[in-house]
Order: sequence, then structure tokens, then C-alpha cells
Amino acid sequence: MAALEFFYDFNSPYSFLASTQLAALAARTGARIVYRPFVLGGVFKEASNSSPALVPAKYRYMAQDLARWAARYGVRLVYKDPLAFKSIFVLRAALAAEEQGKIVPFTDAAFRAYWSEERDLARPEELSRVIASVGLDPGAILSRIEQQDIKERLRAQTEEAVRRGAFGAPTFFVGDQMFWGNDRLDFVEEALRAAV
Amino acid sequence: MAALEFFYDFNSPYSFLASTQLAALAARTGARIVYRPFVLGGVFKEASNSSPALVPAKYRYMAQDLARWAARYGVRLVYKDPLAFKSIFVLRAALAAEEQGKIVPFTDAAFRAYWSEERDLARPEELSRVIASVGLDPGAILSRIEQQDIKERLRAQTEEAVRRGAFGAPTFFVGDQMFWGNDRLDFVEEALRAAV
Repeated sequence: MAALEFFYDFNSPYSFLASTQLAALAARTGARIVYRPFVLGGVFKEASNSSPALVPAKYRYMAQDLARWAARYGVRLVYKDPLAFKSIFVLRAALAAEEQGKIVPFTDAAFRAYWSEERDLARPEELSRVIASVGLDPGAILSRIEQQDIKERLRAQTEEAVRRGAFGAPTFFVGDQMFWGNDRLDFVEEALRAAV
Repeated sequence: MAALEFFYDFNSPYSFLASTQLAALAARTGARIVYRPFVLGGVFKEASNSSPALVPAKYRYMAQDLARWAARYGVRLVYKDPLAFKSIFVLRAALAAEEQGKIVPFTDAAFRAYWSEERDLARPEELSRVIASVGLDPGAILSRIEQQDIKERLRAQTEEAVRRGAFGAPTFFVGDQMFWGNDRLDFVEEALRAAV
């Protein structure tokens, strides 16, 4: 069974868009999808890249482009400045959810809460709501994410992605083949079918 | 009949890829395609953007991504550093060819000479060969492109694109709807069908 690694950050609207397509992609291809949260700001820094939102004309265009993708996918996406969302606690919570076998529903719920429902996930009460919505204990998760090994795992995952060539999000790997962007899911699907 | 404006620079490999699809796109949609060369370096500067080739990891990834698109389109593309190609004379020659009703064949021939056939179009003898290949007089075109009004037209076209929102290449407009990138040709096609 082919495996697809999905590197994402919650502050990346294109990562959100891609996440909405993964269940159907897995169903079509039989691929196993490995959810790998990473720190996009760290990726930009390590790869000497910068957020597209920093180029004013690109920032304005992204609003239109994201709306086109959201319409195509039939999902609600409210455009906000990706740089305004400090997602670090949500990323660590995803790793804590992974320990409980819940990274996929947590990731889906957190993405939708932020990008579809306009909830400010940087606030602990909003993050708690998402945690509870997937059947996890908010108190336990919020205390787990303060522990050093979770922080280190997130850092290591980010460094691994950069070492393998990542410079933005979402980034996909099928073996050592890298794909950057929601708009490369068709190439990802071709690679998964070829890898089976 | 819907019109599609295609802003491009010869040093942009994604512009080359897109150019190979336009005849079929026009045939499918009935759209009229308006070829609008512009100076990508000037666009980057005016829009406070920079070439993707300046980010080392992105530069490396582009080689794989361009190869995937070239395979999908069935075109030969030899990846070279886009920054190494000073395309200004080729852009001006495209405007001179436009005066003779030949901008489309000239653009196709110049793109293929550079990206498929590895010819150094910054050299006058190679540019002359392309000019002659579409039935134009190299001497006449090479003297035409030294004239001030051609230079100014290219500059005005570049400034117009930036004013309308462009920050990279290729950039497409269907009316006031802007699309950036070879990978948005499917959205372009939807817009053309909706505009008819």
C-alpha cells in the first residue's frame, strides 16, 4: 500500500484546502495518509523563503484564488491573513492527538474551526472546544503540549521536512518524490497510483 | 467572443509551458488570445516580489515540477536558471513581430528555441534565426527593436500588468479576473466559458 506524507500547518489556507481532499484521495487510491504537522514559519526561515502573504499583490490575489478553490471543493473558506495566526499550540495539540489515535479528526476539526468557522484557535477555550469535539480531554491535551518531548518532536518533524526539500506548505511526499501545494494533488495521485 | 490576455516573459519556463496549451484552449473555447509580452524582472521589482529561483530549495523543486508538467504536456523542456536569460531583446522582438501580424508564431518559436532546443536567444545570431523562421526579416526586426517607441511600449505593458495586480508570470486576464500560473489554466478555461 502506497503511503502519502502530508506536511501541513494550520495557518496555511492551502493546507486546509488540501486536507479536505485527502479522505477521497485515500479512498480512490488505497493510499495510507500520514499526517505530519510542521511549523511553516520555521520552514520559511530554514529554507530562506518567506510567506506569499508578504507580497501585497500576491496577498490580494490569494483571496481570489482561494475562493476559486473553495468553490471547486465546495468548502467554506474565510480568508484571513495567514501571518496573524500563531498556530504553534494547535500543531502541538495535533501531535498530542496523534498519541491518542486522533490526529486525523483533530486536524480536520481544527482546520475547519479556523478557516470555515472563523474561530480563533490561538485562544485556549477555542482550542479546547476542538479537542473535546473529537472525544479527547482538553485538560489532558493542553497539559501534554507543554511538555518538552512534544515540542521537540514538532521541531524535528519541521527540520526533517526542510532537509528533504520542503520550503512551503502543504508539502507532500510519495517516497522521495516531493510535491508542493494543494494544486499538485493531481500529480500526487498519479504518483500514488504508480507507487502501488 | 471572450478574450484571454496572456502576459509572459521568455525567461519564464512556466510561461513557456502555458504557451504550448493556448492554441488548444482557444480551439476548445472559441476565445481570442491576446499575446502580451512583459518584463518579468520589472514585474518582480514593481510588485516587491522576487524570482522563485532565488530560493534554493524552490529552485531545486522547480526542476522536478517542470519535468512533470513537460511530461504531461508532451513537450521537451530543458531546465536552466531563469535568471541567466536576459530576454529583453526577445521581448522587444515579439512586439516588432506583432506589428507584422506574427507575434504568435514568433512567441512559439522563441519559447521552443530557448526551452526545448537550448539555443541562447541572448545572442543576436540565434534571435535572427528565430525571426527568419517565422518569415520575418531579421535585419529589419533587429533595427526596429532599438527604437524608443518599442522600448516604451514594452515598459507600458509591464506597468499595466502590475497596475492590474500581476506579480509573476505567466499572468492571465479574462476581463478583470486575474489568474497566475500555468497551473491555473483550468480556472482560466472555466472563466472563458462563463464569459462567452
